[in-house]
Order: sequence, then C-alpha cells, then structure tokens
Amino acid sequence: MRAQNTTGPEIETLIGYLAKLPGFGPRSARRVALFLLKKKESLLLPLANSMLRAAQHIRSCADCGNFDTVDPCSICADRGRDGGILCVVEDISDLWALERTGAFKGYYHVLGGTLCALDGIGPEDLSIRGLLNRAATGEVKEIILALNATIDGQTTAHYLADRLKDSAAKVTRLAHGLPVGGDLDYLDDGTLATALRARLAV
Amino acid sequence: MRAQNTTGPEIETLIGYLAKLPGFGPRSARRVALFLLKKKESLLLPLANSMLRAAQHIRSCADCGNFDTVDPCSICADRGRDGGILCVVEDISDLWALERTGAFKGYYHVLGGTLCALDGIGPEDLSIRGLLNRAATGEVKEIILALNATIDGQTTAHYLADRLKDSAAKVTRLAHGLPVGGDLDYLDDGTLATALRARLAV
Repeated sequence: MRAQNTTGPEIETLIGYLAKLPGFGPRSARRVALFLLKKKESLLLPLANSMLRAAQHIRSCADCGNFDTVDPCSICADRGRDGGILCVVEDISDLWALERTGAFKGYYHVLGGTLCALDGIGPEDLSIRGLLNRAATGEVKEIILALNATIDGQTTAHYLADRLKDSAAKVTRLAHGLPVGGDLDYLDDGTLATALRARLAV
Repeated sequence: MRAQNTTGPEIETLIGYLAKLPGFGPRSARRVALFLLKKKESLLLPLANSMLRAAQHIRSCADCGNFDTVDPCSICADRGRDGGILCVVEDISDLWALERTGAFKGYYHVLGGTLCALDGIGPEDLSIRGLLNRAATGEVKEIILALNATIDGQTTAHYLADRLKDSAAKVTRLAHGLPVGGDLDYLDDGTLATALRARLAV
C-alpha cells in the first residue's frame, strides 16, 4: 500500500523514477529520495543539473559506440593510439574498465550486447556490420575479442571469430586463469582447470 | 585510477554525484550513469526534471517536520485525524512506514535524528522544543515514542519520557516482541526474552 495522499505526487514521482534504476527497489528508492530532499542544495540540485547537462551533451560515438561529448569520441580521435589493434567489448562499461587499467593503447569497438537466442538478440541487433567494415580496411592487424567469459559472451566470440575468419587481421581473445591476488581454494573448478591447462614456463 | 580523459568531464561529474548517494560506490555509480545515458528520453530526462520539481516544490512542514508541497503538510492539515495522539518518530522514513500500515490516525512529530554523544548530537540538534510545545497545548492525550529499538533510539526515548513527565499526556512506546510471520528459531535472544516476559493471555 502506497501512502499516495501523505507524501505528495512530487515525492511519489521521484521515488517511482528512482525505483527504475538498476539495483533499486521501492525501499532503496524511498531512502535515496529522502536523502536527496535533505541535501537539496548540496546534492539534489547539482545532481539534477549534472544529469540535464549529460543528457544534452553526451552522444554515442558513430565509430566505436563509446559515450562522449564529441563524435568521434576522444579515444577514436586520439591519433597517438595504435591503429593496428581493435578491442571488441560488449558494453561501454567494459571499455571504461580496460581504460582504467591503462594497459591497452589501441582502439575499441562496442558491440552493445551479446547474441542471446532466449532474449531474441541476433547479429543485426549488435554493432557487427560496423566491426566488419573496420576490420576490412586493412589497417587493423589484430582484433581482440574482449568479451565476458559467460555463455552468451563466448557464443558471441565464436560467431565473431567465424565472421572475421576471412579478414587479414589476427583474431585473439583474453586469457583465462587465476585472477591476480586470487586464492586457488576459492577459485571455481572451471577456471582452475583452464589455468592448469594453459600453464606457462617460468 | 580514473580515466578522466576518456569519459569526459560531464560523465565524471555525474558519476561523482551519484557516488554520494547512500549505498553507492564508484562501481554502482558508473553502472547507474551508463544505464541513465542509455535511457536518455525514458529515464534520464524525466528523473532529472522530477528532481528539479521536487527541489522546487517540496518543503519541510513547520509543525511536524514531514516533507510535503504544502506547509503545514497534508497530514497536519487533515482535520479528520485524532488530535489526541501524537506519534514521535526519528525520521520521515519512519513516518512513511507508519502511514503505509494505515494503522495510525493521529498526528506525527519528526525529531530529525536521535541523541548521540559519539556524533555530538544533543537535544538542541533535534526538534524537541517543538515537541514540548505541542505536548503543552493540553490537546494531546497520548504521546507515542515510536523510536527505533537501537541504543540511540532508546536513549532518546528515555530522555523524552523524562522531559515529558510533567505533561498531561500519557507517554507510551511501541511493543517489543516476535515480528508477525517471524520464526522463533531465527529471532535474537534479546527479542525472544522480551517477548516471553511480555506474554499475554489468549
């Protein structure tokens, strides 16, 4: 039962929108709404204005699919990067994660998801045509399929490897194994078996 | 390491504000920011506008401390309620929780927190003077101290009971015991012992 008449439509509307955020339910939405209303000047208004500015200025890069205020995005526009390597990721969050490592200096291509028969997501729903076009330019020497190690991620990787097999570029994938700082005892059997099979000389 | 140069200041600012929300860290803030940017028309803009409207219209009720678009709030302005009962709560979220039950038809008084020596919160930081004024009018016959069953909540309840002992109103507190639908085996010892001591004839 929602106390529609006691909290007012403005608060109810705010709670309703907050409840649509990932990881939110009615309880956390109410908690955040109340927190925001108590910090009107220091958080509610700056956050609302920052959201409006983001909505106004941020667009999707036509080349790679990253979000930025410029198109092509600052990564695609950066001529200091290695044009020979293209890293294919599922989502912009994966691109951000790779950028945070500082270990990759090539360009990216964001698929926008994975193939998923259950959800009815086919190749035409992902940014695959753009990837094939970029691979066909001849400039790209290596395509890294940095997809998640999930069933859908690996299905998509297999599909892309097949579509890219006539390309001049070498197609690679991320290594599986023990996470850095990881404990063997806590690792799942599949990863441990893979790490064992892919053992390296020291 | 934040990839300041690759995501742009607009996204970084948005993530920074989102990370200040309760229960948020940098990772969940990035996740929500990306989710919002992908749903610009259906969620980002409506949420931002609803936040601006809330900031503009919602104010604190001078009588009870509830948030509403009108002052006095719609609860305080409701003449159909029982003016003889005043329910004292720590926070507006507690008021909302009581209103959702539909079991209380009196008026409220929001303290705005609890006494807490560690955090340096004394009586003058809470809305206690307003409560004493409301209790002194003679209209109030019962004051329910609906404070949380925490150390701070109970300390505050004892303090308020002491301040209100000369008032004409009867001072009560919520019952402790087995939650409805609760399992004895999962209940903490303190609650179980309290429920046993406060047993009732059937």
